Parts: sequence; C-alpha cells; structure tokens
Amino acid sequence: MKDEKEKSYALTEKKENFSEWYNQIVRITGIIDHRYPVKGCEVLMPFGIELLDNITEKLEKMLKDNGNKKVLFPLFIPESFLRKESEHIKGFEEEVYHVTHAGKNKLMEPLIIRPTSETAMYPMFSLWIRSHKDLPLKIFQTVSVFRYETKMTKPLVRMREVMFFNESHTAHKNWEDAETEVKNAAKIYSDHFANNLAIPFIINKRPITDTFPGAVYTKAFDAIMPDGKSMQIGTVHNLGDNFSKAFNIEYIDENEEKKHVIQTCYGISTRALAAVIAIHGDDKGLVLPPQIAPVQIVIIPVIFQKEKNRILHESQSLYNKLKKNFRVHLDDRDQPIGSKFYDWEIKGIPLRIVIGPKEIEKNVITITRRLDNEKLTIDEKNVGKFIENLLENIQHDMLRKAQEYHKDKIIHASDKGEAKQAVEEKKFAAVSWCESMECAETIEKEIDASFIGYNSKQQDAKCINCKKAAEHIAYLGRKY
Amino acid sequence: MKDEKEKSYALTEKKENFSEWYNQIVRITGIIDHRYPVKGCEVLMPFGIELLDNITEKLEKMLKDNGNKKVLFPLFIPESFLRKESEHIKGFEEEVYHVTHAGKNKLMEPLIIRPTSETAMYPMFSLWIRSHKDLPLKIFQTVSVFRYETKMTKPLVRMREVMFFNESHTAHKNWEDAETEVKNAAKIYSDHFANNLAIPFIINKRPITDTFPGAVYTKAFDAIMPDGKSMQIGTVHNLGDNFSKAFNIEYIDENEEKKHVIQTCYGISTRALAAVIAIHGDDKGLVLPPQIAPVQIVIIPVIFQKEKNRILHESQSLYNKLKKNFRVHLDDRDQPIGSKFYDWEIKGIPLRIVIGPKEIEKNVITITRRLDNEKLTIDEKNVGKFIENLLENIQHDMLRKAQEYHKDKIIHASDKGEAKQAVEEKKFAAVSWCESMECAETIEKEIDASFIGYNSKQQDAKCINCKKAAEHIAYLGRKY
Repeated sequence: MKDEKEKSYALTEKKENFSEWYNQIVRITGIIDHRYPVKGCEVLMPFGIELLDNITEKLEKMLKDNGNKKVLFPLFIPESFLRKESEHIKGFEEEVYHVTHAGKNKLMEPLIIRPTSETAMYPMFSLWIRSHKDLPLKIFQTVSVFRYETKMTKPLVRMREVMFFNESHTAHKNWEDAETEVKNAAKIYSDHFANNLAIPFIINKRPITDTFPGAVYTKAFDAIMPDGKSMQIGTVHNLGDNFSKAFNIEYIDENEEKKHVIQTCYGISTRALAAVIAIHGDDKGLVLPPQIAPVQIVIIPVIFQKEKNRILHESQSLYNKLKKNFRVHLDDRDQPIGSKFYDWEIKGIPLRIVIGPKEIEKNVITITRRLDNEKLTIDEKNVGKFIENLLENIQHDMLRKAQEYHKDKIIHASDKGEAKQAVEEKKFAAVSWCESMECAETIEKEIDASFIGYNSKQQDAKCINCKKAAEHIAYLGRKY
Repeated sequence: MKDEKEKSYALTEKKENFSEWYNQIVRITGIIDHRYPVKGCEVLMPFGIELLDNITEKLEKMLKDNGNKKVLFPLFIPESFLRKESEHIKGFEEEVYHVTHAGKNKLMEPLIIRPTSETAMYPMFSLWIRSHKDLPLKIFQTVSVFRYETKMTKPLVRMREVMFFNESHTAHKNWEDAETEVKNAAKIYSDHFANNLAIPFIINKRPITDTFPGAVYTKAFDAIMPDGKSMQIGTVHNLGDNFSKAFNIEYIDENEEKKHVIQTCYGISTRALAAVIAIHGDDKGLVLPPQIAPVQIVIIPVIFQKEKNRILHESQSLYNKLKKNFRVHLDDRDQPIGSKFYDWEIKGIPLRIVIGPKEIEKNVITITRRLDNEKLTIDEKNVGKFIENLLENIQHDMLRKAQEYHKDKIIHASDKGEAKQAVEEKKFAAVSWCESMECAETIEKEIDASFIGYNSKQQDAKCINCKKAAEHIAYLGRKY
C-alpha cells in the first residue's frame, strides 16, 4: 500500500512550524491518509492502527483490572433520549448527526449518531440496577463517536469521526464512592500517560463554563504542545445524580430505601497518540516509546557481496532469538541502506541493530537508540537481557526528557504582566486565583489567553486580579 | 451488572423450539441484552464481547499472516460514491441509512452510513495503486455495518447494526491472481470455522440472482442450523473489474501498459458466534470450543467448615499454576455449589474442576467435561499437560460431533420427491443440477425450498428437473 512517502519532501523543522511538521509526519509515516473525501474523517492506515491497537490494549487491560467490564453499545440513539438530560442536550445539539431516512423510508423515530454514549447506556443502567448489590456497576467500550466540528479539523486531534474513543461509565451508591472512582480513573490515566506513553500532563479541574454537559464537575488531563497550546488528552467527570434522575436509575439500599445512583464517566481518544507524536517527535520524524512501538527493534543487515550469506544468516538468527520477547523486524529488502535507515528513523523505531562484516568478525552487535542516536556495542551473547534493559531505560529517558520540556513550558507568573509574557512566549501561565469567574474572565481578556483550569490548593497567596485570598493555582494559555 | 439470569425461567428444550431456545440462551448467558430501545440493535454484554474478542483475535491473526494489513475507514460515505457501481447501488439502496443533518444544519453533501465498505475504500485504492509494484494490495478492518433490515431481526444473526463485521478487500494484477486470493480466503475461513469454532459448513457458489451486488461471483459458507435452515456465515467475492472501472483503479504493468486491477472482498460477522451457539449448545446451555471460551477451566472449591482453609489454599494454588497457560477462573463466591455449577454449565465453560475434602485427601483432581459430562480423576502432579491435551481433545471431539450432525442434515436426493421430503424433515436436499436457472426455479417451487447454492462438479449425472447432463450438485433448503 502506497502511503505518501514517495513524495519524500523534506520534513518541515518542528520548531519552525509545529503544525505543518505534525501534519506531514502523520501522513508520511503511514499513520493516517487525509485524502478521504468526507471532511474531518481520516483513514487510519496500518502503522496508525498498530500504534492505536497497542495503546488500546494497554489501556483496556488497566480498565479491566479496575473491574470495568467491556461492552459494546449500538451507534444509534433515539433522539428523544438525547434530550432527557437538559444540560447534556444543550452541549451536544449543535454538533450531533441525525439519521432521518433508511432506504426510501422516513424513519418513524428519528435517530442520532452517538456523540458520546451516556444517553445510549443509561436507559440500560436503569434496567440493570435494582439493589445496592448491583453496585458499583462499571463498564467501558472503545468505539468511534461523531461530532459535527465547525472548527478546523486536525488528524487525531479534532475529527468529526473520533476513532478509538475509550469511554468508561460507572454507577455508585453515593457521592463518596463516586469520588473514589474519580480518583481510580485519574490514577489509571496518569499511569497510562506516564508509563506507557511517557507523556507529562497537568490534571485540571475545568471552570464551570467548560464542564462536560450534564456533569457536576470535570477534571481534565492537559498536555502542553510544542506550540504552547494546551491539548485535552483525557477527562474524568463526576455526574452526580443528574443523569440518574433523568433516566430513573434507582436502587434499594441496605435499609430498603430507594435512592438514585451517583455516576462517573471518563474518556480518552486518539489524542493520546497525537500527544505522543507531538511531544516526542523531532526533526527526523517520530520517536516512539518502546511500550507502544509496533516495532521495537529493527535489524538491518549490511550486505556486501562477499559475506552476504553469513551476514544474512546471522541477522536471521538474531531475529529468531529476539522475536520471542520483543516486537522485532528484519529488514532484508533489496534497497540502499540509507533509505532503510530513513524509513525506520522517520517511523521512530526505538532501536536499530546493524549487522555487517565488522560486527561478525568481532562477534558484537551495534545498537543505535533512536531517541538520542547513541551507539552501543555489546557482546552478542548477552543481547536479550541487554535489550530488555535498554528498552526500559529509553522509556524512562523519554518520560524524563518530556517532563523537563513540560516544566519549561509552565511559568509561575506573579502578576498579569508576567502571565501575558508567558503566553506570548508560547507557554502556560500558572497564577494564583481566588475562584471568582469574574476574575477569571478579566485575566483571560487582559492576557489574551484561555482559562484552562485549576488544581492544587495553596495557602497565603493572593489572586493576581482582585488581590483577595487565592486558594487555587490556575493555568492560562492557548488551547486547541 | 445484572443480565436477565435472575428471571431464571427454565430453558426451553433445544429440539422442541430451537428459535426460542436460542433467544433465551443469548440473553441468559449475558451475550446480548435485547432491550435496547432501537429495533435491530442489541447491546453486546461482557461475556459476548469476550467471546467476540477471542474470535476476532484469531481471525485477524490469520488475515495478517495472509499479508492483509489492518486499517480503519470512516463510517460516513458520500452518497454519490455509493452510486458509482450500478449493480452495487441497486443491491443496497433499499437498506442504507442516510445522514442528512448535523446540528441544525442540512449537510451540503448527503452522507450514507457504511452498509459495507467497498465504496469507502476504493476511491483510496485509486490513489494508492499506481504500478504493478503496488500489487497485490490487501487490507481488512473489523467494524459495525448498518443495514435497514425489513425482515425479522435476530440477535447476532440479522441485525440493523451488524457488529464485529470483518471485511477484507484486495486488488490484484489479473484474474488469475484474484482467483488465487479467493482460494486463500476460502482456506482462511475454512480453517477458522473448523479449527477455532468447530463448525462444519458447505462452500457454495451462489446462483447469479443471489450474488453480491457488484461481484462477478460469490462463494458462501453455509452452516446448517438445528431447525434445518441454512445460515450464511461467511462470503468470498470475486469482483472482477466491476469496481475498478467504476472507481478508476488502474496500474501500469511491467510492459508500461495501463490496466484495471481485479478485486476480491470477503467478510465474516457475529454470525460465526451465532453458529457456535446454535450448533454446539444443548438443553443445559452453551457448549464452547476451548479455542474461544473466555474461561476454559473453572475451579470450584467445595467448602466445608472443617477443611475450609486447606481447600481454599489448594484451589488458589491450582489456579496460580494453571493461569500461566490457560484462561482459568476460581469461583470462590459465597454461594451454594449447585448454583455455581448451573452458572458455568449454562455458559458452556469446557472444564470444571471441583476441589473438596476427598480430592485433597487423595491428592487428586476431579475434572468434568462440559461437552459430555465425562468425569476424569487425575494425579495432581500432571495437571498442566493433562489439561492441555484434554482441551485439544474436546476441540476435536466438538468438531467431529458437529460434522456427524452436519452430515445427517444433508440428504442426497435423486428426485424432487425425495428432495421435498428432505426439506420437510428440516434438512438440506443435495441434488444434481444442470446449471439452468429455469430448472433451479422450478425445483424451488415444487419442493417449496430455496436454492442455496452449488459446488462440486460431478460426471454422469442428470438434472433432477430436466434430466439433461448435470455437472453440479446443488443444495436446497430453507434459509435465514
């Protein structure tokens, strides 16, 4: 299958034009093809699917360990169900797709296509939940969701078909149990981003104006992109009893009393992959974390006519040895070695092993790390254990490097002037804030940035706008 | 999560009313919940998802080994693309869902929801394919497809949202290569049905009236259900150049000549699971092939107060030993043992291990096969190897049993009277046929059955209708 590689235009420098670099990299490496004839809908190509399958497998495993059961709900939702929770419909009515006809018939009951699955799932919750013994109820699914975006779309970031949307939905006896689940979810996502994707983030509570429609509050995972913009890569919502009242999800408690359940939901999408690409990539292409790389090690034989058979034989035998424990690929294509290096470098494969006459003569293996181009020469005997450690080290090094970058992107500003300057320098401004939305709006306007969210509590600080006591640290910046 | 088990109505006898038995079993075992408020759309429940994930994983592995790359295409297709191949649109226009509005806007270009993905994929094929070096091109995806069925819907069999639809699409240089791919596909599906699902089938060429819209010919895998009806569980189509002409999919061959590619496509859906349920199940519930069972072995401790700790400890240690190589579950719920037996029996778990005082005293393990209730007592030491063999044997035994059943369902009829009788006895009639559609229609009418398809060639036989030379064996019966 031909991706757009053959055009082989020089890759834009990441620093120079991040957005252009990103758009090129997702196409050239065969993650997506953007030429599908419906706006905001992309084709996920084999390399993209392998990445997303690896990411999803790890995430689903963590969710199952948390007791969430995997299900699959239908795509179609009766339009009347979308309308049951009043805030929810307000949030989605502008961007929901309507199915009105099938064949040549007008549908009796108009359907919508899931923009998210609360209103598909919760009518079933009201059938499944009867007693406190049925709680907690925890499920998830990985599906496409559909939103008629009017903003500019961007591959994996803002799409009209959001693919690989992983949504969990839970129901609990009371507020405390739901709060515990919010913490569980935040822990799962934190571990997933840090340990699998090597992505740093801020966990922010969203201001009420930016809360998920129907939720009591929203906590979001924000990653900071190279252009200084914030990208929301995961969200966790405490829904309180807003939906359980709208959908009559009740249970009989231990004292024979009827109560509404308290619900949470949390979700994550292809944006996780977008963050991996954006944060780790460099001017030579992708740099993939070993945990999710479709190929962790590529073996490239350097074929000279004289030693050809021996080199190929050694390469094959190393491949056979490594494939038991690693995702390894032997690139024995009849192509110039430079073009092979290019192909695997741009795809961000963590380790490259070259086998040529020198290596064979000395019984060694030469390994190059994609992350920093570091070359290592090791004795052939210990290769398995060595590579295992090496991949672990790379995973750690990538997180550490990304954390340094992340830290550098956040400026603790003590007044609006400093905050404004931070945003102009394509960074986030962290400021003390009193919790008044009026102050938030004033700050937003004066420093020309968006109020992203707030998190940790602090003492003895004053709001940078009104100078009253400020319990919170708020983050301002530009966003996608 | 509460499935419908608690109703716990006695299961209908399979022989007495297969259709009712089937509808009960898919609900009670937690495969689907049929109460979703859109007709023909079901919720796939955790146990159903585990089964379908296992089936899909095995199938996708085989497709990848065949060189098919996994992709994901968008759900929406421009309506104008569906119309490009004239036979194709005729086949689907009555049952395709239309998306006309998004938010409060009428869409500029009306969209349809994929009923199958030829017309989504092939515009991209025309971009991806330039030269003979790009061929063969082989891709697949596993998605939901949507068809506005007007016939009675049935869980996993006939749905308006067909979930877990796995569709492969390939492009080749010439007819011969496409014919080879048809054989590859038929081999993959044959192996999948026989080795993973233990399902016997007939591979039938469909009469021209029943060929996939846009294909040159269709070969289908037909399984025979307990009620004698045929269920199509997989199809392979040679599309010739019908679509490549409609979508301009051309390549430059070795002699610099421009040619249209020859295409195939093949697909398989949740019907594979429906066949597993229908063919292997019995009056006590599901009987699952070990290859796809979400749980292969359940360990049930028989807890007496006196020996409680020791029994639980032994059960746990057996669980720890087995979980490295098998999908094993330890059922230590505080419930009567009878209800535990019931739960795992109805779910069709291949092996049940009971550990009680007797077993501990004698250092043995008692294993019961779900398939035939056979009890085996073995020394605790050899349990791993023993169970490995046992699961293999069960898988073989299930296929053999199903093949006997399948053979019994096919009557080789030498005239229309015998054929009619076979159909009345809820069986298939295999008859000699001359290849004239007129004869086919006459036979259909006279014996009150559908012409399912035809396959193997034969010599020296005469058509049961016109008595002319009959090269083919044709199958007639009732169908879903």
